[in-house]
Amino acid sequence: MSIQSVNPRTGESFGPIIAPTTSAQVDSMIASAVTAFERWSLTSATSRAKVLFALADALDANTEKLVEIADAETALGIPRLTGEVGRTTFQLRTFAQALEKGEFVAPSIDSAVDAPLPQGHPKFLKTLRAIGPVAVFGASNFPFAFSVLGGDTASALAAGCSVVIKAHPAHPQTSQLSFDIAKKALIDAGAPEGIISLGHGFDFGKSVITDPRISAGAFTGSKAGGRALFDLAQDRECPIPFYGELGSVNPVVVTSTALSDVNAFAGAYLDSLLMGNGQFCTNPSVLFVPDNAEFINAVQEQLSHREPSPFLSEATKSLHDKNRADVISKTSARLLQGKSAPTQGFFSSPAVLVVSAQSVLTHPEYLATECFGPTGLVVTYSHSDELHAVLSKLEGALVGCLFSQNISTAEELILNALASKAGRVAFNAWPTGVAVTAGQNHGGPYPASTSSLHTSVGTSAITRFLRPVAFQGLPDESYRAVTADTVKGK
Amino acid sequence: MSIQSVNPRTGESFGPIIAPTTSAQVDSMIASAVTAFERWSLTSATSRAKVLFALADALDANTEKLVEIADAETALGIPRLTGEVGRTTFQLRTFAQALEKGEFVAPSIDSAVDAPLPQGHPKFLKTLRAIGPVAVFGASNFPFAFSVLGGDTASALAAGCSVVIKAHPAHPQTSQLSFDIAKKALIDAGAPEGIISLGHGFDFGKSVITDPRISAGAFTGSKAGGRALFDLAQDRECPIPFYGELGSVNPVVVTSTALSDVNAFAGAYLDSLLMGNGQFCTNPSVLFVPDNAEFINAVQEQLSHREPSPFLSEATKSLHDKNRADVISKTSARLLQGKSAPTQGFFSSPAVLVVSAQSVLTHPEYLATECFGPTGLVVTYSHSDELHAVLSKLEGALVGCLFSQNISTAEELILNALASKAGRVAFNAWPTGVAVTAGQNHGGPYPASTSSLHTSVGTSAITRFLRPVAFQGLPDESYRAVTADTVKGK
Repeated sequence: MSIQSVNPRTGESFGPIIAPTTSAQVDSMIASAVTAFERWSLTSATSRAKVLFALADALDANTEKLVEIADAETALGIPRLTGEVGRTTFQLRTFAQALEKGEFVAPSIDSAVDAPLPQGHPKFLKTLRAIGPVAVFGASNFPFAFSVLGGDTASALAAGCSVVIKAHPAHPQTSQLSFDIAKKALIDAGAPEGIISLGHGFDFGKSVITDPRISAGAFTGSKAGGRALFDLAQDRECPIPFYGELGSVNPVVVTSTALSDVNAFAGAYLDSLLMGNGQFCTNPSVLFVPDNAEFINAVQEQLSHREPSPFLSEATKSLHDKNRADVISKTSARLLQGKSAPTQGFFSSPAVLVVSAQSVLTHPEYLATECFGPTGLVVTYSHSDELHAVLSKLEGALVGCLFSQNISTAEELILNALASKAGRVAFNAWPTGVAVTAGQNHGGPYPASTSSLHTSVGTSAITRFLRPVAFQGLPDESYRAVTADTVKGK
Repeated sequence: MSIQSVNPRTGESFGPIIAPTTSAQVDSMIASAVTAFERWSLTSATSRAKVLFALADALDANTEKLVEIADAETALGIPRLTGEVGRTTFQLRTFAQALEKGEFVAPSIDSAVDAPLPQGHPKFLKTLRAIGPVAVFGASNFPFAFSVLGGDTASALAAGCSVVIKAHPAHPQTSQLSFDIAKKALIDAGAPEGIISLGHGFDFGKSVITDPRISAGAFTGSKAGGRALFDLAQDRECPIPFYGELGSVNPVVVTSTALSDVNAFAGAYLDSLLMGNGQFCTNPSVLFVPDNAEFINAVQEQLSHREPSPFLSEATKSLHDKNRADVISKTSARLLQGKSAPTQGFFSSPAVLVVSAQSVLTHPEYLATECFGPTGLVVTYSHSDELHAVLSKLEGALVGCLFSQNISTAEELILNALASKAGRVAFNAWPTGVAVTAGQNHGGPYPASTSSLHTSVGTSAITRFLRPVAFQGLPDESYRAVTADTVKGK
C-alpha cells in the first residue's frame, strides 16, 4: 500500500506518493547497518558525542522547514512543533554530554584479589559494548522527539549502534526530511555510511524486526501494534530486547484537600487532558475525585466552551471514537461534552465520562481501555477503601499523580499504590510534560512498557542498547585493543 | 510423576518419594509470596542485608549435612561440594555488603532546574523498587550456587523480592534441606512468612511462570527447557522479564605461540574440559588450534589415561550421549577417547572430537550443539581467515578465551571477535571457574542468556529485579514515605 501525507484539518491528501520499501532495499539497508555498526561501535564515546552535537546543530538550522511540513502533516501547530524540535536537539546534546563525561559507557576495572577461593579472583575490565544494529519505529504523536531522530534513535546512536528506522505513515514527508538532514550531518561529521537508514510501510517493519542481523527494537505507539512487534521479536530463533511503549491509562488521584478551588482545578484538568488533542501517552486518562457535584459541574461548564482540535490522522480518530463509544455503551457513564466537531477533517468533540468507583469495580475492563485523544474518565470515590480497590485493578502505567494539600499516612498509601503501578509518580503536577533529565523515568510495568527496567526518556535510555563484556586477565597495555574509551579505575 | 533421588554412581533410587506440588499448593505459595513481597520490598536495604548475613551463617553451620546429601544425589564429590557451599555463602554475604553500601538500590536526587523548557525541570527522586515475586528454577549442575539459594534467589532477595523456587528433580533432598534451613533462618532473622517457597515437578514450574502474580523468572539449564519457559513468560497477557541461561558453546582460541609445550597445554585443556565431568556451562566446548599433529597426539595420549566420572543424572547422560553421537555421525571427526565407562551408574567415556575448520564451515550446525558432559570439539585451522570465518558462525556464548604469548594486531582481532559473541573474554585462562565479583559478567548473547544486558553472577545480578520509579516534585520530608533507603544527593 502506498503512503501519502494527509492534512488532518481537511482530510485531503497532498505531496508525493511514497512506495513501500522493497525487500531488496530492506536487505541492503540492513547490510549497510551491519557494516556501519562494526565501525561505529568501536568509535570512542567522545567521538560519538561530536557527531551527535553536529546532528543537533543541523536540525536546529533547519527548524523552520521541518516544522512547516510537520504542521501540514500532523496539525500539531507551529509553536508546539518548534518546541518539539528544540526538545529533540536538547536531547541529542544531553546524550552527547553524557558520553563526554563517560556516563554509562566507561569501562571499569575490578583489580585482582590474591586470596583463596571464593574471595580471590583475577583482574576484570568490564566494558559495555553496543548491542548491534537497532530497529526504531517512529511514533505518530511526536514527529520529532519520538520519531526518526527521537529518543530511541538518539540513545541507540549514543550507545554505538547503527539504526534502521521505520517512518510513521502519518508523517512520511517530515520523516524523510528529518532523515535527509540527519544523514548528511552524520556523514559530514565522520559517521560511517549506513549508520541510519529509513524505510516505509507495514511489511518493512515486519521484515526489519524479524531480520537476524537486527539486535534490538524500540517502539512507541499503540498496544496492538507494539504487542505484535514484541511477539515477532520474542518468537525469533534468537529473541532480542524489544523496548515498546504501548500506551498507558494514567491514574490521577485527587484528595478533597486539593479541591478548595473547583473552578481552577477543573480548568487545569481540562488543559492537561486536551493538550495536543489529548494525544499524549502521559494524558491524565483517569481522574479519581471525591464524590463532589460542584467539581463535576465546573468540568461540565468549562468543557462546554472547549473547541475540538484535529487528530493526527484518520486512524487515530477512528480508534479513539471506537474506544470512547465502547466505554460509553458498556458503562452508565455520564457524558460531558465540549463543542461539536466540524465534519471536515479529523475532529471529535472533547468529552469527559463520569462514573462511580462502584461501577468501575463491577467492570474493571473500562480502566484498561485507553481513549487516545480528547476523552477523559472521571471516577468518583466515596472513601479511601474504594479508591484503593480501584487503584489495585489498574494495569501498568507510565505515570500516576497525586493532588493533595499535604502528605499524611493516607497520602503515603496512595503514593505507594501509584508507585506499584507506574514508572513515574508526580505530586501536585499533571502527568503531561516529560522532562529530559537524568532523574526521569518514562516507562513502567506492562503495558506502559515491555521492559519496566528501562526508561525511553533521559540519559539512562542509552543503557538499553549496551551489553556488558568482562575481559578477564587482559594486560593493561591491551585495553586499547578492546575499548576505544577511557578506563575508570576501581 | 513422583520424584525420588537417584545415586548417579550406581543408578539406584533412594530416599523419600516426593509428590509433585499440587495446584492448590502453588496458589497458596504464590499468595504468600505476594503478601511477603509487600512487606519485604519496603524493608530497608540495610535490614535486608542483615537477613542475608543470617542466611549465610545458617548455611555455613550446616555445610556437612548439606554436602553429604548433595554428594549422594549428584556424585560431585565432597571437596567440590564443600567449596560450592562456601561460594554460595560468600555470594550471599557479597550481596549483603553491596546492600549495606547502597550499591544498586540507593535512590538519587536530580534537583530542580529553574529555566525555560527544555532545560528546566522539576525535582526528581529516582528510586529502585523490587519488581515483584520472582520464580527461580534450580539448576542440576550446581546444587548450591545455582540452585535453591543460588545467585538468582540471592539477587532476588537482595532486591526486595519474594521467591518461589522450583527444585531440580536431580537433587530433591538437597533442595528440600537447603530450603528448610533457609526458611528457618530467614524467619528467625525477621523476614516475612512466605518470602521463599519451594515446589517440585514439571507442572509446578509451568504454573508458576504463567501465574499473573509472578513478575520475573530466572533459570539456569538446557536450551530446550529454558526456551520453553522463556516462551511461556513472553506469551503471557502481561509478559515478564525472564533471565534464562540456556547453555553455551564456548570458543577457546589458541595461537601457535601458546603451543610451545604441547604436553602441558594438552593436560591443562583436559583438566578444564573434564572438570566436574564437563558439566559446566563454561566448559571449553570448542578448542581452535593451529593444525598441529603433535598437540593432537598429546591430547590423545593423555586422554587415554583419563577415567570417566559419573553424570549428574540419567537424563544428563542420555542427552550428552545423543548429542555426541549426532556430531560424530554427521562429521568426519576423528574420535579420541578416554578409559571406557563402567556399565553400572551413569558414566560415559571422555572424548575429544577433532575436525578441520573447513569441515566445520561446510556444516556450521556442529558448532551449535552443546555436548554437556565430558566431550570436547577440537577445530584445527590453517590460517587466520579460516579461524575468523568459523568464529563468525558461532552462536552467542557465555565466555570466549584466547591463549597467546602476546597481543599484537592479529590477537586484537580475535579478542574483538570473541567479544562480539560472548559475555566474558578470558586471556590465557581456561573458561571454567566464574569469580563472584563486581567486574564479572556471566551472560552473553542468546542462547548463552535470554537477556544479554544482564549477568547472573556478581553483585550486578541484583539489578535484574529492580525497576526504576521517579518521584516528581515530592517534598523532601516525604521521601521516607516512598523509600526505606538512604537517599544519595546528586
